[in-house]
Amino acid sequence: MNQKRPRVVIIGAGFAGLYAAKTLASHNVEIILIDRNNFHTFSPLLYQVATCALDPSAIAYPVRSIFRHRDNVHFMLGEVVSINTDNHQVEVRTNGQTHTESYDSLIVAAGSVTNHYGQQSIETNSFGLKDLDDAVRLRHHILRLFEKAAWTDDQDYKSALMTMVVVGGGPTGLETAGALFELYNHVLKQEYDDWHDLKAKVILLEATDKLLAPYPESLQEEAKKQLESVGVEVMLGAMVESVAVDHVKLKDGQIIPTHTLVWSAGVKANPLVDMLNLELQRAGRIPIEPTIQVEGYDNVYAAGDLAYLEDENGQPYPMLIPAAKQQGILAAKNIIRQMKGESLETFKYIDRGIMATIGRSRAVAYIYNRIPMTGWLAWMAWLWLHLVMLMGFRNRISVFVNWVWNYWTYDRSVRLILDRNPARNEGDVA
Amino acid sequence: MNQKRPRVVIIGAGFAGLYAAKTLASHNVEIILIDRNNFHTFSPLLYQVATCALDPSAIAYPVRSIFRHRDNVHFMLGEVVSINTDNHQVEVRTNGQTHTESYDSLIVAAGSVTNHYGQQSIETNSFGLKDLDDAVRLRHHILRLFEKAAWTDDQDYKSALMTMVVVGGGPTGLETAGALFELYNHVLKQEYDDWHDLKAKVILLEATDKLLAPYPESLQEEAKKQLESVGVEVMLGAMVESVAVDHVKLKDGQIIPTHTLVWSAGVKANPLVDMLNLELQRAGRIPIEPTIQVEGYDNVYAAGDLAYLEDENGQPYPMLIPAAKQQGILAAKNIIRQMKGESLETFKYIDRGIMATIGRSRAVAYIYNRIPMTGWLAWMAWLWLHLVMLMGFRNRISVFVNWVWNYWTYDRSVRLILDRNPARNEGDVA
Repeated sequence: MNQKRPRVVIIGAGFAGLYAAKTLASHNVEIILIDRNNFHTFSPLLYQVATCALDPSAIAYPVRSIFRHRDNVHFMLGEVVSINTDNHQVEVRTNGQTHTESYDSLIVAAGSVTNHYGQQSIETNSFGLKDLDDAVRLRHHILRLFEKAAWTDDQDYKSALMTMVVVGGGPTGLETAGALFELYNHVLKQEYDDWHDLKAKVILLEATDKLLAPYPESLQEEAKKQLESVGVEVMLGAMVESVAVDHVKLKDGQIIPTHTLVWSAGVKANPLVDMLNLELQRAGRIPIEPTIQVEGYDNVYAAGDLAYLEDENGQPYPMLIPAAKQQGILAAKNIIRQMKGESLETFKYIDRGIMATIGRSRAVAYIYNRIPMTGWLAWMAWLWLHLVMLMGFRNRISVFVNWVWNYWTYDRSVRLILDRNPARNEGDVA
Repeated sequence: MNQKRPRVVIIGAGFAGLYAAKTLASHNVEIILIDRNNFHTFSPLLYQVATCALDPSAIAYPVRSIFRHRDNVHFMLGEVVSINTDNHQVEVRTNGQTHTESYDSLIVAAGSVTNHYGQQSIETNSFGLKDLDDAVRLRHHILRLFEKAAWTDDQDYKSALMTMVVVGGGPTGLETAGALFELYNHVLKQEYDDWHDLKAKVILLEATDKLLAPYPESLQEEAKKQLESVGVEVMLGAMVESVAVDHVKLKDGQIIPTHTLVWSAGVKANPLVDMLNLELQRAGRIPIEPTIQVEGYDNVYAAGDLAYLEDENGQPYPMLIPAAKQQGILAAKNIIRQMKGESLETFKYIDRGIMATIGRSRAVAYIYNRIPMTGWLAWMAWLWLHLVMLMGFRNRISVFVNWVWNYWTYDRSVRLILDRNPARNEGDVA
């Protein structure tokens, strides 16, 4: 190995880390890219894996494939166990062994995790939707629910099994709730014949009095209307008090019997940020300079969801993919500038707007945060954008073929229960 | 539910059970189809899932989808725990509850399992390739092997990790060995750069002095030649004495350091056959009449791999898909004949021949057990036949797209390690 080239260690192969690595790859540096998965995940489509519309491999791409032709990018599968900013070293646990990697520059881009706000009952009894493991676990759970409900004679148990609750009125919550009800309504209902008498219900809980907080009011109302037209029950001002395997209790005392609580009501920085021993910002995020450097460090950068930076109005940049991608690229560019002795550039966020899909032919979009768009047009825009953004030519074909197939046939064939030994959260009565 | 219609219980949704259910579905009977998976598996392509060429969902199809428009076929996900032929009842454990199902006729079609011939060290330390769980487990293992080997400095450990051993000179053994070496040679080798210095080796062990026992000698030799041209080392007359996590020991004392032993050296009937309290035949198979009825029973049928029937030459019918399918169909037809008071038909096996693929553009086939075929032509015949046989239109498209993609790009994008907590067999040194 060439020890003379500067070494950049990147923690995380999400959007920030991946685009940082891509940007650095064409320069004369050695890059060590570390992730606990051997693939990059296209997270906006996780809910489609969870609801049987897509295979995991359609939205995830092996990191080594992405850098197949870059011999200065070295992927390491493992978990970072310590960061030593004095010695410029990162310790990685991989396959039972610990490696120490030295860096000249470090980019911390480990993303975010589900935020349960310290509520143990939620953490234990809910499903997240932050990574592919989450999505696959939720999918197996949903499919197993229906098999259980099919053969039970206990009507209360059956109705609890058939009630799915999604918490959080953000895009993930809306998309998941809509897709869950469509999975039941278009697909599963046809296959559980009259013998079984199954009626499913999907409830979306939102603690505040509106969905999609950053959108203009007209789109918020449109989203609610669309969601209800799909068949989802929307409850605003509904705050979760606690969760058990077979019910959720709201702050107002109401109890909803359910075996499925999908928690998409918040995210926080990956707890790995604690390794830096910094004063953290809201949601545990690392305060960074407009140069993407971690405050107080010269050669440590933090990019993406786990980094905290405010715009000119004092608002933090959102924990969204475009911000992560743009920060990752800027971190990489600034590292190269540093090496050349040039002055560093500061972050300018290019915001093309926000969008959420709600189900078949339904979506809301707020283009450039100026132009509202709804219905079929917004849905087509959503489809097109997500296809374009998807990494890898084969994945794009595969997702496209699946979408067309699902649309025309109202079918979902990705419906295999592959874990015969289910984990927690199954809530068997027997 | 209509209690007046005769009830047929079918155990197993493999080829025998599935085709029995399909045949019965158009008659005036109520069918309960039981399987421990919620899908039917196209088992000939399991090795392609194991070697990252196909997604699990491409070769498996939800049973409920298959019978979506048949309201007299009821699927039950669960494991049969007892068969009571006196009371005509089957007990099924499903999701922690036990159901009792009564039958007028029973078809036992639970297939076969890997045969370790009672050798505990093989059972503990080898990978099978009999169901989708096996295939996914082997895939994760292989991908993790390469990640381990990439970052270790211990050359002996590295070389053991990079040695994969397949046992069994039948079609599964050949196909798996060929596909494993191609996965390394065409795909993984490109992505583990010179830093890692990885050289993989695939060894095929066969206990007798020839591959593909039922084929004519010329094809046996051709198969060996093709396999070696792919890059696989073939060892004939090599009998396994014992297996550990990090090596396999042969009967002649030779030790091969390896962390991967794929055992495809034999199958036996599903142990569920013991529930019938019968004198079993070779490989634990249930002796049946030419009518597919279990010997001594009027309303109990056994079809497929777990059933034992001899042809006019005293040779048992092979444990292959065509035999299973034909027996399943005949069992269903004879049940209908019985109900109508007609006399039963006896089994006539239609044998279209055997084939095995060895890698890119390589295969051997023995059409109608008369016409030998090799090379590209045999390979195209194999591809075509397997596409046609694959269940479900979407799966066929998806497999076809994947195959074309893999062929032209020498890529495999189904390479996600999805179980972060690996099971046994991982053989970590640390």
